[in-house]
Amino acid sequence: MVAELISVGTELLLGNIVNTNTQFLAEQCALLGLSQYHQEVVGDNHDRLAEVIRTALGRADVVILTGGLGPTEDDLTKEVCAEVMGFPLVEDAHTRKRIEQYFQNSIYKVIPDNNWKQAIVPEGAIILDNDNGTAPGLILEKDGKAAVLLPGPPGELYPLFFQQVRPYLEKKQPSVIRSAMVKVCGMGESQVEDSLLDLIDRQENPTIATYAKTGEVHIRVTAKAASEEEAKRLLKPVVKEIKSRLGDFVYSVKEKETLEEAVVRLLQKYELTVTTAESCTGGLVAGRLVNVPGASEVFREGFITYSNKAKRKYLDVSKATLKKYGAVSEQTAREMATGGVFATDCDACVAVTGIAGPDGGSEEKPVGLVYIATYMKDKVRVEQFQFKGNRAKIREQAVVKALDLLRRSILDNYR
Amino acid sequence: MVAELISVGTELLLGNIVNTNTQFLAEQCALLGLSQYHQEVVGDNHDRLAEVIRTALGRADVVILTGGLGPTEDDLTKEVCAEVMGFPLVEDAHTRKRIEQYFQNSIYKVIPDNNWKQAIVPEGAIILDNDNGTAPGLILEKDGKAAVLLPGPPGELYPLFFQQVRPYLEKKQPSVIRSAMVKVCGMGESQVEDSLLDLIDRQENPTIATYAKTGEVHIRVTAKAASEEEAKRLLKPVVKEIKSRLGDFVYSVKEKETLEEAVVRLLQKYELTVTTAESCTGGLVAGRLVNVPGASEVFREGFITYSNKAKRKYLDVSKATLKKYGAVSEQTAREMATGGVFATDCDACVAVTGIAGPDGGSEEKPVGLVYIATYMKDKVRVEQFQFKGNRAKIREQAVVKALDLLRRSILDNYR
Repeated sequence: MVAELISVGTELLLGNIVNTNTQFLAEQCALLGLSQYHQEVVGDNHDRLAEVIRTALGRADVVILTGGLGPTEDDLTKEVCAEVMGFPLVEDAHTRKRIEQYFQNSIYKVIPDNNWKQAIVPEGAIILDNDNGTAPGLILEKDGKAAVLLPGPPGELYPLFFQQVRPYLEKKQPSVIRSAMVKVCGMGESQVEDSLLDLIDRQENPTIATYAKTGEVHIRVTAKAASEEEAKRLLKPVVKEIKSRLGDFVYSVKEKETLEEAVVRLLQKYELTVTTAESCTGGLVAGRLVNVPGASEVFREGFITYSNKAKRKYLDVSKATLKKYGAVSEQTAREMATGGVFATDCDACVAVTGIAGPDGGSEEKPVGLVYIATYMKDKVRVEQFQFKGNRAKIREQAVVKALDLLRRSILDNYR
Repeated sequence: MVAELISVGTELLLGNIVNTNTQFLAEQCALLGLSQYHQEVVGDNHDRLAEVIRTALGRADVVILTGGLGPTEDDLTKEVCAEVMGFPLVEDAHTRKRIEQYFQNSIYKVIPDNNWKQAIVPEGAIILDNDNGTAPGLILEKDGKAAVLLPGPPGELYPLFFQQVRPYLEKKQPSVIRSAMVKVCGMGESQVEDSLLDLIDRQENPTIATYAKTGEVHIRVTAKAASEEEAKRLLKPVVKEIKSRLGDFVYSVKEKETLEEAVVRLLQKYELTVTTAESCTGGLVAGRLVNVPGASEVFREGFITYSNKAKRKYLDVSKATLKKYGAVSEQTAREMATGGVFATDCDACVAVTGIAGPDGGSEEKPVGLVYIATYMKDKVRVEQFQFKGNRAKIREQAVVKALDLLRRSILDNYR
């Protein structure tokens, strides 16, 4: 089954916003095993929109349109799609009632007149109730083809897709597609591919695909089967084999688990608290830990010691070390991590010091040089990195490697 | 003049990556005053690619293609575009030499055979030397139409565009387009529009457009004229009028200046140092300040006090205050900001405490409640916010508002 995605909106044509909706829908359609050959963006213009819809319906089985379902005169998606597919428009009493209810619960006292336009639907369309807005989603079916119309705001699009569109598409698919995710940190994409070369080469079902993220590699394993149980049965041994080959480099096999969530989970498991001592990352490692709801159980305080003076004052880094080796050195990283634990009652500390640039680099210590240290169970572990890219990119990589060193140190010391 | 953008690549069709290249190019083309009606994404497939290129050349004056210029057999963009436009392919000695030089400076000892493919070009094409990769950009001109072929990696695409494609497109345009940016924080988009309603209503040249960003509104003023001077002369009074209407809500009129850069610039101007005392934002305010190269001049240390104990230990927040008013309260925010200054030698402190959720909210103190305080010149200023959205969104908004309160406090106290 072939799917095609059309985004409607001038703000996309003019580059005011990035088209994240299409990325979301494309990924979801791929997960469902749908084939995809084209994506389009078009503005709120009757003739051009009609032409794009006609072309897409000519070559795809399911056309998913986002945007242009709002209450203003500019919003044309529903009207044009109904016209192209030959559906008359009628008022839907159920949707009208929902709009009334929506406004009862909102700050508006009076329902703006143009909102009633959103109760007009193509006659015979499947109506997808939208709990987060006034424009319902719509599915128009004709001659074995379907057009799925969804509102553009992600807060409306995502729930509508997961709750109503995905089940609809799954029912149209002859087979079940299920996938598993293996998330890796500490290996590059080509290293991961080398380790899995024979698996990747002989892949058929399940398939294996690797994706490079900042400091991470994600491996998606996808199986096609007659039933959900069968698909899961196909996935299991492949995921197990990947895990056994990559060992501790695998930080999660949960689809949605982030690196910081994996770290917080480990800290919780071993009942450990951690503190942070950051120089060039300036609070971003702590910021990632606090991303995790409930992080307060394991993370209570952190230090941003950007100046040498602050490193001495809060972390007791010695004057001699700073003078002899400099702020960006293995020795300073070591003392920062140690000092963080002794300045608090925490079980562990992760420390980062480096040169993020663009200035401050030298031949001996170039921009991108970063030392990361962990202190745990009276032991310090330090790693040295030479990152590439601009200031933001260098700091982003340092944050990932700091979280990962913390993770691996916990495994090595407590498992 | 009409431009159309085509992205070539399976990773876009499958939703593995977000199409930021198209957003970049669309914004740049809009800034040049080019009209845009369609964007497409298509895979590395001969027939489909040829069809898309043919359609685009039929309706646009300039078609910009990105991706598919790599050295592998999958990469077809150049070959298919040359075929559609009727250009024979020939080897270009200059490009071959550049590829040799590129590999001399790289870690590779031997040049992979398939890289020579990148020295083959459509005969008569304009060749755009690529300093960051082996695939040159190409411009094919025929019958008053042009196809511009650019490599997909942003690190190659952006410099090629700015250095060679933009000047080329500017020359083709009969008039000059210049724009100015006014960046606003502390007002919502509709408030900004209300304040500028008469200007927006009667706009012709320059035009005024507003864009909502997290916690910010950006206003782009764009003028069309016969010369650069004339365009700048048209922009000046409009920018001045907007600035005078929005006053201190305007934090910058520089295209690339971020909120944190504006804050660091102000701190430098008044020779002030600042510290941070963060609870729910957990280091992200400090992280934003450290985004700015040279931030060490004004920011040397910061506190992440996630637990009550840490708030007491480092910031001297009183036990009585925490007990009577709670950690998320105006009083605690006030004491955090005060304590931050007294614990350091800094001139100012910005403090954040709030409930980012999803847990921890109550009827009295719902999720999203955030207090932000600044201490400066013996004066404390506290603002209360009720943010919407998930944990990440609430924290992101809190960071922006903290930077903005710091900015406005500096203006009020030192200007």
